[in-house]
Amino acid sequence: MGNDLTFFQVVSIVISALAFVTAFWLYRWVSSQPSSNKKIAEVGKLIQNGANTFLAKEYKTLVRFCSVVALLILVFLPSPIWKGNIVDNISMVASYILGTVLSAIAGKIGISIATIANMKSAEAATKGIKPSFMAGYRGGAVMGMAVVGSSLLGVTLVLMLTGNTTVLLGFSFGASSLALFAKAGGGIFTKTADVSADLAGKVELGIPEDDPRNPAVIADNVGDNVGDVAGMGADLFDSNVASMAAALVMAASLSNSEKNMGMVLCYAAIGLLASIIGVFTANMKEGADPTRALNMNTYVTTAIYGVLTAVATYIFDFNWRIWGASAIGLIVGVIIGIATDYFTNDNKKPVKMVAKACESGPAFTITSGVSYGLVSTLPAMIGIGVSALAAYKLVAPLGAGGNEVAYGMYGISMAAVGMLSIVGMIISNDAYGPIVDNARGLVEMGDLGDKALEITDSLDSAGNTVKAITKGFSIGAAGLTVIALLGAFITEVNDAIVALGLNVEKVTGFDVTNPTVFFGLLVGAAIPPVFSAMLMLGVDRNAQRMIAEIHRQFREIAGLKEGKEGVKPEYDKCIEIATVGALKELIPAGLMAIISTLLVGLIGGVHAVGGFITGNIVSGLIFALFMSNSGGLWDNTKKYIEAGNHGGKNSKAHKAGVVGDTVGDPFKDTAGPSINTQITVVSLVASIAATLFLTISIF
Amino acid sequence: MGNDLTFFQVVSIVISALAFVTAFWLYRWVSSQPSSNKKIAEVGKLIQNGANTFLAKEYKTLVRFCSVVALLILVFLPSPIWKGNIVDNISMVASYILGTVLSAIAGKIGISIATIANMKSAEAATKGIKPSFMAGYRGGAVMGMAVVGSSLLGVTLVLMLTGNTTVLLGFSFGASSLALFAKAGGGIFTKTADVSADLAGKVELGIPEDDPRNPAVIADNVGDNVGDVAGMGADLFDSNVASMAAALVMAASLSNSEKNMGMVLCYAAIGLLASIIGVFTANMKEGADPTRALNMNTYVTTAIYGVLTAVATYIFDFNWRIWGASAIGLIVGVIIGIATDYFTNDNKKPVKMVAKACESGPAFTITSGVSYGLVSTLPAMIGIGVSALAAYKLVAPLGAGGNEVAYGMYGISMAAVGMLSIVGMIISNDAYGPIVDNARGLVEMGDLGDKALEITDSLDSAGNTVKAITKGFSIGAAGLTVIALLGAFITEVNDAIVALGLNVEKVTGFDVTNPTVFFGLLVGAAIPPVFSAMLMLGVDRNAQRMIAEIHRQFREIAGLKEGKEGVKPEYDKCIEIATVGALKELIPAGLMAIISTLLVGLIGGVHAVGGFITGNIVSGLIFALFMSNSGGLWDNTKKYIEAGNHGGKNSKAHKAGVVGDTVGDPFKDTAGPSINTQITVVSLVASIAATLFLTISIF
Repeated sequence: MGNDLTFFQVVSIVISALAFVTAFWLYRWVSSQPSSNKKIAEVGKLIQNGANTFLAKEYKTLVRFCSVVALLILVFLPSPIWKGNIVDNISMVASYILGTVLSAIAGKIGISIATIANMKSAEAATKGIKPSFMAGYRGGAVMGMAVVGSSLLGVTLVLMLTGNTTVLLGFSFGASSLALFAKAGGGIFTKTADVSADLAGKVELGIPEDDPRNPAVIADNVGDNVGDVAGMGADLFDSNVASMAAALVMAASLSNSEKNMGMVLCYAAIGLLASIIGVFTANMKEGADPTRALNMNTYVTTAIYGVLTAVATYIFDFNWRIWGASAIGLIVGVIIGIATDYFTNDNKKPVKMVAKACESGPAFTITSGVSYGLVSTLPAMIGIGVSALAAYKLVAPLGAGGNEVAYGMYGISMAAVGMLSIVGMIISNDAYGPIVDNARGLVEMGDLGDKALEITDSLDSAGNTVKAITKGFSIGAAGLTVIALLGAFITEVNDAIVALGLNVEKVTGFDVTNPTVFFGLLVGAAIPPVFSAMLMLGVDRNAQRMIAEIHRQFREIAGLKEGKEGVKPEYDKCIEIATVGALKELIPAGLMAIISTLLVGLIGGVHAVGGFITGNIVSGLIFALFMSNSGGLWDNTKKYIEAGNHGGKNSKAHKAGVVGDTVGDPFKDTAGPSINTQITVVSLVASIAATLFLTISIF
Repeated sequence: MGNDLTFFQVVSIVISALAFVTAFWLYRWVSSQPSSNKKIAEVGKLIQNGANTFLAKEYKTLVRFCSVVALLILVFLPSPIWKGNIVDNISMVASYILGTVLSAIAGKIGISIATIANMKSAEAATKGIKPSFMAGYRGGAVMGMAVVGSSLLGVTLVLMLTGNTTVLLGFSFGASSLALFAKAGGGIFTKTADVSADLAGKVELGIPEDDPRNPAVIADNVGDNVGDVAGMGADLFDSNVASMAAALVMAASLSNSEKNMGMVLCYAAIGLLASIIGVFTANMKEGADPTRALNMNTYVTTAIYGVLTAVATYIFDFNWRIWGASAIGLIVGVIIGIATDYFTNDNKKPVKMVAKACESGPAFTITSGVSYGLVSTLPAMIGIGVSALAAYKLVAPLGAGGNEVAYGMYGISMAAVGMLSIVGMIISNDAYGPIVDNARGLVEMGDLGDKALEITDSLDSAGNTVKAITKGFSIGAAGLTVIALLGAFITEVNDAIVALGLNVEKVTGFDVTNPTVFFGLLVGAAIPPVFSAMLMLGVDRNAQRMIAEIHRQFREIAGLKEGKEGVKPEYDKCIEIATVGALKELIPAGLMAIISTLLVGLIGGVHAVGGFITGNIVSGLIFALFMSNSGGLWDNTKKYIEAGNHGGKNSKAHKAGVVGDTVGDPFKDTAGPSINTQITVVSLVASIAATLFLTISIF
């Protein structure tokens, strides 16, 4: 096979290019769909501009934030500039910046297509469910292809240019930095707008949802795009890069490193290829069930991946045990998805029980929703635990004779790669949701008729159902990835010990009965709850600012409240407030996580950090699952009641259901999904600062 | 000194006896206080009977439950009867039963005095704040003395009779079994009654709180006693025994074991002595602040303990490092208490912010309360982590030359003993709360006038404030105790390996990069959320049954709704339902925790169990802190609004505050405080089943 690694690097680049071509083709296809309705075009344009305003502002803040981080990296990482090799520091900075830039570009592409596809999907709904579905789905797929293509390309390029896996972690950290802004910032933005529009419009003034008189209404629609499309894309870009980076770090530390690194790239490339094929086979017949169409796609892609990796394993003589680990990851991902679905699907017991509790008032809606959310953590935690254990045990024997641990950890990282292999498909499905959600709103605002509304309604509902499965997937994958990053941390520490010629024992693991580890464990476990609380309190504060602005506009703009012809609210001001506030509220939370990692490391050294990462993973997974699932459950409970159960709309149960949904919104769209990113950020900061902890720690 | 251990065993017994004498004297003193009001006597009698009904039923169920457990212990523990020594199994069973019986007796005494002291305190309120305070406080102190006296006595007796510290863990497991019933069962009972009385009475019928027409009103008052007095007592009996048992197990494994074991008993006895002195110096002047009086007491007892242990350390030539570890525990306990106070005190920012959020409706009450509750976990987690680390580092050098770990863990267990040393004082303060709360209700029902109401109001409010500090103490102590129990588990495993002559490596710790440990860690972390969810769902289900019964009584008992002279509701039926339901709902949750421990151990062996306990501790502490503090915060927010802020009673903010309080009730009174017990139960089950896991595990 000659040089395995170079061959697979070339393959990765070719398949990434193929993904870009696909994205370009899909972009053109979606753009070429007919659009003629003026009102839709007008509102659509407002949403587009709003989303661009947010992105521009966000990227501007990011440039400042990342410049500071880049400077710190240049001086301190991987080792202080006065102690290490300056070339390493420059590579690390360059790679960090590349990570942020590639993710930013993918986000920009995604937002750009999403704000076109929503209009196309809305208009196509007048012709039937198939064209409307295809416009929404292919719009989402542009995002999927862009994200996965650029993440694979970036990882491969950094590896080819530097040949240094530590630098790869810098790239991954760049992706995480962006994800923190995109996901947590977008999450605060979207909930600020949502909550303010509801409170100041629907509740106080009694005007309907999506009423154009409401100054926050465009911000609300923009929120769906920046939170759900761009945020989710950046989040999965981050997870995908992190899983590949962790696997490559582990692979590089093994004896036959080139072959194993090649295998990582090969599997990742096959996952992307399978997703491309999946995107093109995605189809639905007129009158068919869109949920089925979306899920079918996931299963088809999964099957293609399984077969192609098996073929590749045979051809390139990879080890079947590693193939098995990756297959375990993928299968467990599907299982976690199904479990998540149980707790949030309105056909299942939990939603029905919570809906019934709504009859007794909001307090019972909350306690029962919290309870089911807490229970929902168990299957996923067992799933992640079992897959990590199985992947480890399967691959560890390859390192017989002293390298079992390294091989075992590599096995876990390959399970994560397996779980994330079909990430292209997952993003496509996930981005489809907010696009058709927006399309539904446009159909309403553009008066396209009841049939079109019915069609977009069913497309929207399918998006919500599918979301549960993809969300389970991404939390599961994040779980495995961060376990692999824990392994990467140990590798980094030991490499640094050798490089620095330190006279300390190599780290072989983190023993919880070591009180330094236990101390880190307890503190690390407290970070995700504090981080999510800071984001939720940020939403509350930001919403108060925005509500004050809505009040001001209604007071000062003559004729606005009455809906006088030609009088329009200043939508921009609300978008501005949501944007500025989101970034302002997010930074303290992000810094808290990063600084506490550094503090624990500088005080307690690498063992405290090992405990810290572990505690962070464990409690982070629990809170991510709890908050996402409770939130999803309350959302569907409200919809279930609105569908006519327990008294239907405006009943007492419905009012309680609305309270549940409002509590669930920041749970599932702000705090819950940002925790993933927080865990990754913490793990990466720890890894790239490993040398620092070894050289300047107090104990 | 001759035989150190025997000497301190005798000292412990003498001081335990002194505690019983004190309890008896206080019981007599409280009983001899004047009582003449007939209405108070009548209602007081109903509450007394109700509480006794609950206890009788609970103990009956316990006898069945414990018989099964005892039988299982007899057959399987510490090792299967066909493999080990039958005498060990019989000692273990006997010790288990003694643990349940002693705790049950202490609970019975506590309930019995609490239901007398509430009447005395109510009546004394007509004479002034001092006599009313003294009746309430001394009533609580009876419970404090009974609990601490019997726990110290029990531990000492078991140790003297068997000389076997493993058997001591059986005693501790007995105490935990009872605590599980008393705390979780009592918690479900009290919230069932509370919620049902409110919903079916206040909300549906619009009759006032504590209206005697409401069939659930007595059950509600009984709930305060069985949940807060008996439950809390059993909980701290359990923690206290567990901390002593863990410390004794660790001490027994050290080289100079007798001296170190003696030191454990000596410190525990001094703690009890300090509490006795504290109880007698407790006093307040007419017109003084009861909160100050209660807190003063805590500080005085703490100081006495510090001085006396220093004197003892000097006289008996104990090691000063160990004294230091115990002092660290005590100081950190006070710090955690102060931090807890910050998050729940209505003079501080969190309560004020949540009260402000109430103006925007219930959803914001919930999200902000959840957020502050989540933030509140950080200081306590850091406090527990730092004290464990400091105690370990301080004591570990004593084992220089290979025994650092054992000494370090012993240091942690002594920090727990230090934190729990003043538990007698804590229970006294804690039991004071529900007594004066009940007294307040009796003053209202007995029409004792506004001045008496004002007095009991201020006493009640002091009880709530002090509760925050004692609660912080008990969670902190539980945290350190379970860390020590993790050490005890390792000791048990290694003892069993030697005893069975197994050809396996001794356990030196639990490395999280071992996937078996990590698997246990993830599953163990999911148990506390699931456990608390099961209890909360149990409250919901039980409340539905009770509401149906209230509806039935109003429908079937003629004249009840109208308040016809001589027509009384069937209070007993409601008490019966709350009791039966509480026990029924509790058992699955308790079994879930126990069975999952056994399953993980039987599947994954001792390493999986080590991870399981660790995950359980970490997530258990987070959820216990979060739920207790959010609940306390909502409670005080409601009271703060009722005091006239943000619109006062019946304002929009107040309605939202009531929703928060109703959500907080099961958080703080059912789920949160039961998690402590759940963690202890899991740790003890693991320890006493260690031999089993070594002999019959799959991997």
